[in-house]
Amino acid sequence: MNAEIIAVGSELLLGQIANTNAQFISKHLADLGVNVYYHTVVGDNAARLEEAIKIAENRAQLLIFSGGLGPTKDDLTKETIAKHIGKELVFDKTALASIEDYFVKTKRTMTENNKKQALVLEGSDVLPNDHGMAPGMFLKKDNRFYMLLPGPPKEIQPMFVKYGFPAIQKQMTSKDVIVSRVLRFFGIGESLLETKIEDLIDAQTNPTIAPLAGDGEVTLRITCKHDSVEEADKLIAKTEEEIFARVGEFFYGYEDTTLMNELSHILLKKNLTVAAAESLTGGLFQKEITGIPGAGNIFKGGIVCYTNEVKHQILQVKESTIKEHGVVSEQCAKELAENVARLLNADIGISFTGVAGPNELEGNPVGTVYIGIAKSGEPTKVEKLALSGTRAGNRVRSVRYGQYFLLKMLEDK
Amino acid sequence: MNAEIIAVGSELLLGQIANTNAQFISKHLADLGVNVYYHTVVGDNAARLEEAIKIAENRAQLLIFSGGLGPTKDDLTKETIAKHIGKELVFDKTALASIEDYFVKTKRTMTENNKKQALVLEGSDVLPNDHGMAPGMFLKKDNRFYMLLPGPPKEIQPMFVKYGFPAIQKQMTSKDVIVSRVLRFFGIGESLLETKIEDLIDAQTNPTIAPLAGDGEVTLRITCKHDSVEEADKLIAKTEEEIFARVGEFFYGYEDTTLMNELSHILLKKNLTVAAAESLTGGLFQKEITGIPGAGNIFKGGIVCYTNEVKHQILQVKESTIKEHGVVSEQCAKELAENVARLLNADIGISFTGVAGPNELEGNPVGTVYIGIAKSGEPTKVEKLALSGTRAGNRVRSVRYGQYFLLKMLEDK
Repeated sequence: MNAEIIAVGSELLLGQIANTNAQFISKHLADLGVNVYYHTVVGDNAARLEEAIKIAENRAQLLIFSGGLGPTKDDLTKETIAKHIGKELVFDKTALASIEDYFVKTKRTMTENNKKQALVLEGSDVLPNDHGMAPGMFLKKDNRFYMLLPGPPKEIQPMFVKYGFPAIQKQMTSKDVIVSRVLRFFGIGESLLETKIEDLIDAQTNPTIAPLAGDGEVTLRITCKHDSVEEADKLIAKTEEEIFARVGEFFYGYEDTTLMNELSHILLKKNLTVAAAESLTGGLFQKEITGIPGAGNIFKGGIVCYTNEVKHQILQVKESTIKEHGVVSEQCAKELAENVARLLNADIGISFTGVAGPNELEGNPVGTVYIGIAKSGEPTKVEKLALSGTRAGNRVRSVRYGQYFLLKMLEDK
Repeated sequence: MNAEIIAVGSELLLGQIANTNAQFISKHLADLGVNVYYHTVVGDNAARLEEAIKIAENRAQLLIFSGGLGPTKDDLTKETIAKHIGKELVFDKTALASIEDYFVKTKRTMTENNKKQALVLEGSDVLPNDHGMAPGMFLKKDNRFYMLLPGPPKEIQPMFVKYGFPAIQKQMTSKDVIVSRVLRFFGIGESLLETKIEDLIDAQTNPTIAPLAGDGEVTLRITCKHDSVEEADKLIAKTEEEIFARVGEFFYGYEDTTLMNELSHILLKKNLTVAAAESLTGGLFQKEITGIPGAGNIFKGGIVCYTNEVKHQILQVKESTIKEHGVVSEQCAKELAENVARLLNADIGISFTGVAGPNELEGNPVGTVYIGIAKSGEPTKVEKLALSGTRAGNRVRSVRYGQYFLLKMLEDK
């Protein structure tokens, strides 16, 4: 089955919001083995919406609409579809009761135009809205399926998962399942990784291998279509093995995991705690590690040492170090990592010092970064980076490299 | 002029990323008075991309493409356009030199397929890529404009602002200008704000008022179309005045500013420095303040005190405070703010302590947050919040409130 997702809303065309609904729906359709060939965004305009519907009917069997089901005059998705496919709009009693109920619950006053939201396409299956007022709809006509969903993410997402997805699944005739696995790599560029596995990508039929770069990391999505989940898993495992033989050293995890996530698992497993001293990264490493629930078990705390004064007075970096080597130096990174671990009584100290930009520092170009890792009982390691991004990008990538170095160090033991 | 934005990339159709490029471009085109009637997303497939181009040519004068300019076999945007409009691809010497330079700078190995990125449509204006390798292109053919931009946000955004936007502007013939102004509010919900200015929104024709909520703040965009910029500015100023009379107390800034940005201006103006002690926010406040170039002038540093041990030993919170009041308490927030200012020799100390979730702490429900602000020569203030979001949401909103409280405190003097 081929699908097209049509998002309706002028706010999308004005750039006020991104089309995250299409992303959400697409992800789920991919898991279902439904091919999505196009996303379309169109404004709150009946004529242009109808044009988009005609085009989509020529190239997709399943048309999924998001947005335009609200109470205002601008909302005209169902009216336009009704006119286009020759169906009436009728009041749905359950939807009307649920809207009335919603106003009672939220102690707000119901206006006349809110009733409009209970109008549905005649003959459609109504998809309840558990988080708002506008119900969704699912309708088959002339071998084509139309699914209408509300626009707000907090309404469309639970509605699609609970009612929309199963409704589509029921219509699927193929016994084939789509199984996919995402492999995540760090420390290798997209084109170098692709060059190393080019023959595998070229030879791909089933499973397929799709690379994607982002935020300094690269992912490969292996996707297999098969009538047996077990067989699909086996084929994917075989492809994975071939990939690992080429670039396994850069692999760090599966699916939606992150470097910080993997790092937190290994710290917890080894019962180790971390403390951080951050200069150019200004708290970003700590913000990420404390983003993990239960971070208290692996993270003691840390110090953002943005000035030389704090590096010296609080973090006890020697004055001679700052004078002779500067704060952007291997020696300073070493002392910061060692001292923060000692001061905060942690097993591991990690430090970040360098030049985020936009201006150079102590004669060091923007992007020069030193990352120190001090682990009790081992010699302190310092890694040097030469990054070439924006200020924000350099900060993020420094933190990613820090997570990666620490992860690899702990994995090796 | 009417435009259509065509994003190319299977990762969009698989739901791996959202089409934030279309949002970014659309926002800028709206400011320019260019109507965007459609966004299209199509995968890395030449035939379907060509179909999308044909459809767009029928309904738009300006076609803006994002993505598919990379070095891999999947990247086929320029190849498909070249074939469709009957143009050759030729090597651009400047782009090639810049690609080679990029590899020297980042000390990575250049592969043969990277050269492919220097191929451009013959006769097009090349848009330099200051943050990556693939150059953009701008071409006029048969009264239609084609702009090709790279996919990664960190490349397309600066390229469009610096080179793409001015190139389009040059082609505009209409004398009407669109002037818009964004007002940002914090501390008031979207529906309450809308209720307070409902009559203004209902009566709007030119200028128009468009509310938008996000991340705990609300913005209003006032837009005016006029043949004189001065007149448009006057009309906008009048509307703004009416809005300020109703909800001015919650206003904090214009356009793309942020609370942290406004806060940094006022700190710099008043020559004040800040230090932070963060428990539940885990470094997020510090990450944001150090995100501002030149942060060293207003920020000394801070301490992420994730454990009671660090609160007591490093930040010198009294044992009796922790015992009697707990760490989620007004008293603890007060001591943290005062002590971090003293220890780091800053004019202002700000502290965050509370329960981000998912579990309650010391009998306090998730969302209980205390924010302390200690300013030398003034009594320390502590504000209490009762938030109701996710762990990540509660952390972000706590930091926003901290910025807001401090900003309002400094504005008042």
